[in-house]
Amino acid sequence: MTDQNPVFIPGPTNIPDRLLNAMHMQTRDHRAPDFVEAFAPVLRDCKKVFGTETGEVITFPSTGTGGWEAAICNTLSPGDKVLIARYGMFSHRWIDLCQRHNLNVEIIECSWGSGAPAELFEDALRADTDNEIKAVLVTHNETATGVKSDIAAVRGAMNAASHPAMLFVDCVSSLASMPFEMDAWGVDIAISGSQKGFMLTTGMAILAASQKALAAMETAQLPRTFFDFRDMMAANSSGGFPYTPPLQLIHGMKASLEMLFEEGLENVYARHNRLAEGVRKAVDAWGLKLCANSPELYSDTVSAIYVPEGFDSNQLTEHAFNAYGVSFGIGLGEMNGKAFRIGHLGSLTDVMVLSGLATIEMAMADLNYPIKLGSGVAAAQEYFRKTASKATA
Amino acid sequence: MTDQNPVFIPGPTNIPDRLLNAMHMQTRDHRAPDFVEAFAPVLRDCKKVFGTETGEVITFPSTGTGGWEAAICNTLSPGDKVLIARYGMFSHRWIDLCQRHNLNVEIIECSWGSGAPAELFEDALRADTDNEIKAVLVTHNETATGVKSDIAAVRGAMNAASHPAMLFVDCVSSLASMPFEMDAWGVDIAISGSQKGFMLTTGMAILAASQKALAAMETAQLPRTFFDFRDMMAANSSGGFPYTPPLQLIHGMKASLEMLFEEGLENVYARHNRLAEGVRKAVDAWGLKLCANSPELYSDTVSAIYVPEGFDSNQLTEHAFNAYGVSFGIGLGEMNGKAFRIGHLGSLTDVMVLSGLATIEMAMADLNYPIKLGSGVAAAQEYFRKTASKATA
Amino acid sequence: MTDQNPVFIPGPTNIPDRLLNAMHMQTRDHRAPDFVEAFAPVLRDCKKVFGTETGEVITFPSTGTGGWEAAICNTLSPGDKVLIARYGMFSHRWIDLCQRHNLNVEIIECSWGSGAPAELFEDALRADTDNEIKAVLVTHNETATGVKSDIAAVRGAMNAASHPAMLFVDCVSSLASMPFEMDAWGVDIAISGSQKGFMLTTGMAILAASQKALAAMETAQLPRTFFDFRDMMAANSSGGFPYTPPLQLIHGMKASLEMLFEEGLENVYARHNRLAEGVRKAVDAWGLKLCANSPELYSDTVSAIYVPEGFDSNQLTEHAFNAYGVSFGIGLGEMNGKAFRIGHLGSLTDVMVLSGLATIEMAMADLNYPIKLGSGVAAAQEYFRKTASKATA
Amino acid sequence: MTDQNPVFIPGPTNIPDRLLNAMHMQTRDHRAPDFVEAFAPVLRDCKKVFGTETGEVITFPSTGTGGWEAAICNTLSPGDKVLIARYGMFSHRWIDLCQRHNLNVEIIECSWGSGAPAELFEDALRADTDNEIKAVLVTHNETATGVKSDIAAVRGAMNAASHPAMLFVDCVSSLASMPFEMDAWGVDIAISGSQKGFMLTTGMAILAASQKALAAMETAQLPRTFFDFRDMMAANSSGGFPYTPPLQLIHGMKASLEMLFEEGLENVYARHNRLAEGVRKAVDAWGLKLCANSPELYSDTVSAIYVPEGFDSNQLTEHAFNAYGVSFGIGLGEMNGKAFRIGHLGSLTDVMVLSGLATIEMAMADLNYPIKLGSGVAAAQEYFRKTASKATA
Repeated sequence: MTDQNPVFIPGPTNIPDRLLNAMHMQTRDHRAPDFVEAFAPVLRDCKKVFGTETGEVITFPSTGTGGWEAAICNTLSPGDKVLIARYGMFSHRWIDLCQRHNLNVEIIECSWGSGAPAELFEDALRADTDNEIKAVLVTHNETATGVKSDIAAVRGAMNAASHPAMLFVDCVSSLASMPFEMDAWGVDIAISGSQKGFMLTTGMAILAASQKALAAMETAQLPRTFFDFRDMMAANSSGGFPYTPPLQLIHGMKASLEMLFEEGLENVYARHNRLAEGVRKAVDAWGLKLCANSPELYSDTVSAIYVPEGFDSNQLTEHAFNAYGVSFGIGLGEMNGKAFRIGHLGSLTDVMVLSGLATIEMAMADLNYPIKLGSGVAAAQEYFRKTASKATA
Repeated sequence: MTDQNPVFIPGPTNIPDRLLNAMHMQTRDHRAPDFVEAFAPVLRDCKKVFGTETGEVITFPSTGTGGWEAAICNTLSPGDKVLIARYGMFSHRWIDLCQRHNLNVEIIECSWGSGAPAELFEDALRADTDNEIKAVLVTHNETATGVKSDIAAVRGAMNAASHPAMLFVDCVSSLASMPFEMDAWGVDIAISGSQKGFMLTTGMAILAASQKALAAMETAQLPRTFFDFRDMMAANSSGGFPYTPPLQLIHGMKASLEMLFEEGLENVYARHNRLAEGVRKAVDAWGLKLCANSPELYSDTVSAIYVPEGFDSNQLTEHAFNAYGVSFGIGLGEMNGKAFRIGHLGSLTDVMVLSGLATIEMAMADLNYPIKLGSGVAAAQEYFRKTASKATA
Repeated sequence: MTDQNPVFIPGPTNIPDRLLNAMHMQTRDHRAPDFVEAFAPVLRDCKKVFGTETGEVITFPSTGTGGWEAAICNTLSPGDKVLIARYGMFSHRWIDLCQRHNLNVEIIECSWGSGAPAELFEDALRADTDNEIKAVLVTHNETATGVKSDIAAVRGAMNAASHPAMLFVDCVSSLASMPFEMDAWGVDIAISGSQKGFMLTTGMAILAASQKALAAMETAQLPRTFFDFRDMMAANSSGGFPYTPPLQLIHGMKASLEMLFEEGLENVYARHNRLAEGVRKAVDAWGLKLCANSPELYSDTVSAIYVPEGFDSNQLTEHAFNAYGVSFGIGLGEMNGKAFRIGHLGSLTDVMVLSGLATIEMAMADLNYPIKLGSGVAAAQEYFRKTASKATA
Repeated sequence: MTDQNPVFIPGPTNIPDRLLNAMHMQTRDHRAPDFVEAFAPVLRDCKKVFGTETGEVITFPSTGTGGWEAAICNTLSPGDKVLIARYGMFSHRWIDLCQRHNLNVEIIECSWGSGAPAELFEDALRADTDNEIKAVLVTHNETATGVKSDIAAVRGAMNAASHPAMLFVDCVSSLASMPFEMDAWGVDIAISGSQKGFMLTTGMAILAASQKALAAMETAQLPRTFFDFRDMMAANSSGGFPYTPPLQLIHGMKASLEMLFEEGLENVYARHNRLAEGVRKAVDAWGLKLCANSPELYSDTVSAIYVPEGFDSNQLTEHAFNAYGVSFGIGLGEMNGKAFRIGHLGSLTDVMVLSGLATIEMAMADLNYPIKLGSGVAAAQEYFRKTASKATA
């Protein structure tokens, strides 16, 4: 019976019935003229979500990890230097990917819970007087710690250092849920996927590339075929695909964009903020602490929450699943055992959030956490009530 | 976004994805041999849910109201006397249906909130020395008041009066959610539908008839064609249907019965009782009262809850829908304006129930009800925690 | 693997994926404001399909047979006289239904294969000098014989006889596939269902009633509750339903009407005519004969085809199913064993029709019918080629 | 209306409703224990389809092209020599992919229409006395020409040359449709995808790797992260995935394997052979020629058919789509304009094949091809009749 409960993992997100139906479609010929009728709006309308007018949108049947690989393979060459700060699991993994592709990674180690260190980036870039650093790679939303970084500040730092490096941003767990302004922030490649803010199944990497990034692909020496921007863009420009496209996901993306625009992107962002704030009120009421170091870093798509000293967060998430049939995010990497995560992105309502809060409260009580049953729910209810006019967009 | 919230109306119930998929099927020929492969198990396995070995299961593409009409048309003649107690909206409607079909209805008026009055039935039957009363009609679960009647006691009263009348029972909102024992209780016709405990879409009336009821159809003079038991049973016995069958619903019923048996009927009943008890703990915590007069009458599928003096329950349910996108049952008939209802039947979990309780709490707080936010949720959480081992059947 | 083959029964029809998806929806509260958003367009737009501006559309969770029962119960009284011609299985069944409801049925026996006998109706009505006949009941499209009757001619006969009887028309297997003009033809009640021209699952009777028919319901004495027009119209007028509505089918109807109007009703009719004509070319090429007596009677939704002397049509349809996994209509009633039927209505293309023709040809060849393999297909291909510009509306 | 017609492209294939429903599922947590319940059978049961007991199955959210890339990146190093014969579009593309990844590709140019040249491979391998060739790459089924190669013969040639090179085989458009015997044929990596014989949506590359191939990954220097076997196998072995898995496709694969085993792999192969043979009978009857050079090369999943001199195959496939709403495969590469293709793989029946043949016949007639309407259909019908006992497995 439990498969009717929502999930509270930070993606893949709960899928609206409308999108499941949009993907429930028979095979059509991807070389037939109607293919482009579905695909062209996706490429066009994704630009609005990325906040770009001058960039190009490129998709691959893949995941966010594939999107990362596509970003570096198409723009960099073996031995190229890139600058990355490690402050969570996903920045860590991106570093690993770059190293495996024989890039020279300059790593800035930060505490987990902090965001992208604009000042340290500026220092490193100023020190790079030969402009060896070809790209700065930043994770917009660290899913492991629930930290949202200030990309505009990173761009500001790069500009302050007058450094020509490109700026690549992982926005897998932020796009279509929190504001993203590719052009305004001077992002060169932004990487996302179908299974988070777009509320679809996993299977599509969605990137946007600036003209500067596209120029870099002419000289990039890292090998690529499946992830080659040139093949994809050439095929797309004539309404095609360089290999078999994920037709159902493309139709799902078309429907997802329609849903997002019907609600209005601003309303989508406001809804995410409201739901996240409700969760944070509950965390406060429980007397627990977020992993994110300070309020300006709080993510609106996922909250990573420290369990009290002496408790094991893995036991908590396991118990919540076993006793109540609800999935929460486990603590990843350094946070393993120390924190659990509540995903609050995608297709979600205040009502659904309350069920998640009520559930984790029960699980905490079962494990003798020093929290009061109903306290977090009541705090969230109070907040949701006051802001209810924003609820039913 | 709000269409992802569960409904808390007392049916139609939330539909499991598995059953939506089972009904998502192309047209097959209902005269082809494979029709019976789906239909025969439905007729056979429904008997277990009705608790009958000697009765016959009969279905119609219709609703519970159609099932009522089928019950009387196939067994009674114009002018026949029937005995019914009015203690809620659905017993009231059944009376109306009988009167429109020119039956002579002896009505026992009871207060809304009471159940089937076994003693008054016994008195009426004893007084009927000429055995003019051909049938006693009882609503097992009064959806309007959240009252579950004691059918065994009604049968006991009939037996005590040594009266030969048939016993017809409306179990639309109880079957497959609360125990039902057709044979043990001496029920002659039991009437249910696809959209409650069976968790399907609306569109199938499901009846079980005893051999005594089937014998009555030979002399019954009320006109019927669409609802004729004889045509249906004759066609069914050779694997057919007297007109076009609702193929997708039949396949849905097959899948629903499989789900029910996988969980186990006893576990299904226990789950409903547990969820209902959680709701009742919340009602207590709010300081509100159920419409049902006493605990033995409490329904495990729906709770009808009086709002405090001076409040309008319609305003509450409207507000819950408008502000939070959640549907609760309105007060019906005498209860209109005075009570709201929480449906807790069908495909439901403790986690989903908590979201409903949290929502109605917010709505009550918004309308200045004298309740404390989180209080009902906490009471239900406490109960659900203690009984959690029963949760994930 | 065979469940991917289309069916060629004369309904239920092949269901477009778009409509299966439209019906794949979660439970919503039928008392919530959004119910009427789906239902009002159905009631309004069905009028266009019926060809009425002055009539009212009324639906029941039921089938065409239920629609028949609703028609007579709401307008007639026991003992009332009705006039019906028997020329096929469905007119036969309607006679039976009227007799079971204690109507006095004047039957005009016609050969199977003929249509509604306007002249004989006129004679009978002229002879009814006391206007005892309250209604003339006509089957527009006799599904058993593939005969389409001329309803305008029947109305002409009634007018010529200056008779005030009402005209009821069964258009179950014609509506939304062949032109129907309720107002122009003076039809008082037209009865259809969801599973034919509307391309949906079985489960909704769809009627349209003239003001004259609605006036008759005030004095009609046949008992009815489930099928009561008054309850349904009163509830509908305030956006509700007198009992639980078949929500998914209502949303399906909304989507079906959208599909029909997108294609354009005239194009829908032209498509059905073209597909039917292709089938008839094949029948000609096989040297077989239609049951319909003459070309003006040929139905555009189903062809009933005599098998040659000495062959058993049941063996043919059984073999087609067993050997090739394709369902064709069996011969019904008098035609049993003598004729098989090819349904060509609803969601169908020329390409699908060709697969049906090719299949039945193989089955005929397997059973040593004196036909040439490919001959019928070629004749249909030739016709479809010449008319291909009408194919892809 | 045309979206109800089957497609006759050589993949993606027509998707059975059962598999569309299997993929119509809500998000579940891929880190929850039930993930492995779906995934483990996929990894296990795919082995049977590959015909391997000693190999390992590895999947990626990707396509066949991604599968190729995974195969070489995990086993080879820049500068490594590989041996490939070019005899169609897909062997051509694989060459291109290898070259882009800085492999040293020794190409054997063959005519399009021929298969893998075992003798020439043997010569090349014998000439490679230093064992510089690390892998022989073969396309089992050339989708562009409808040519099935003899992999056992290739392995025979390698053995005859006593060469230690690995054997990689692209079986994207053959696996689960034609016999494949990885172990028996000594294949080191076999590469397929979800959208052909598995009858699912596009989005999963499915590989099987021999122990020899797995050993090679320890020293392979081509960079890879997304496609890294090591990460995938390590995660899989503990029931996980190294990044977000395509959950719905995994559940689809589980259901697909169930369908294949229910039908029986031998029956699946026999069905494909029968359908292909029917198509070939039609081609003969039309007086046209297959691109495949000789009968032992005929593919059972796709037929590439030369149009007569003076005709343009692109015009034919375009017209078939525009006039009849049916998609056939266009001529690829060298065959562009010269040949069209009929895909006959995946979820397909004889009945569906006949509709495709009838359609392309009409299109050819419309364009004045010298063919007789119905001739190809009749030839296929004749063949299907004689072999009908194999039809309805």
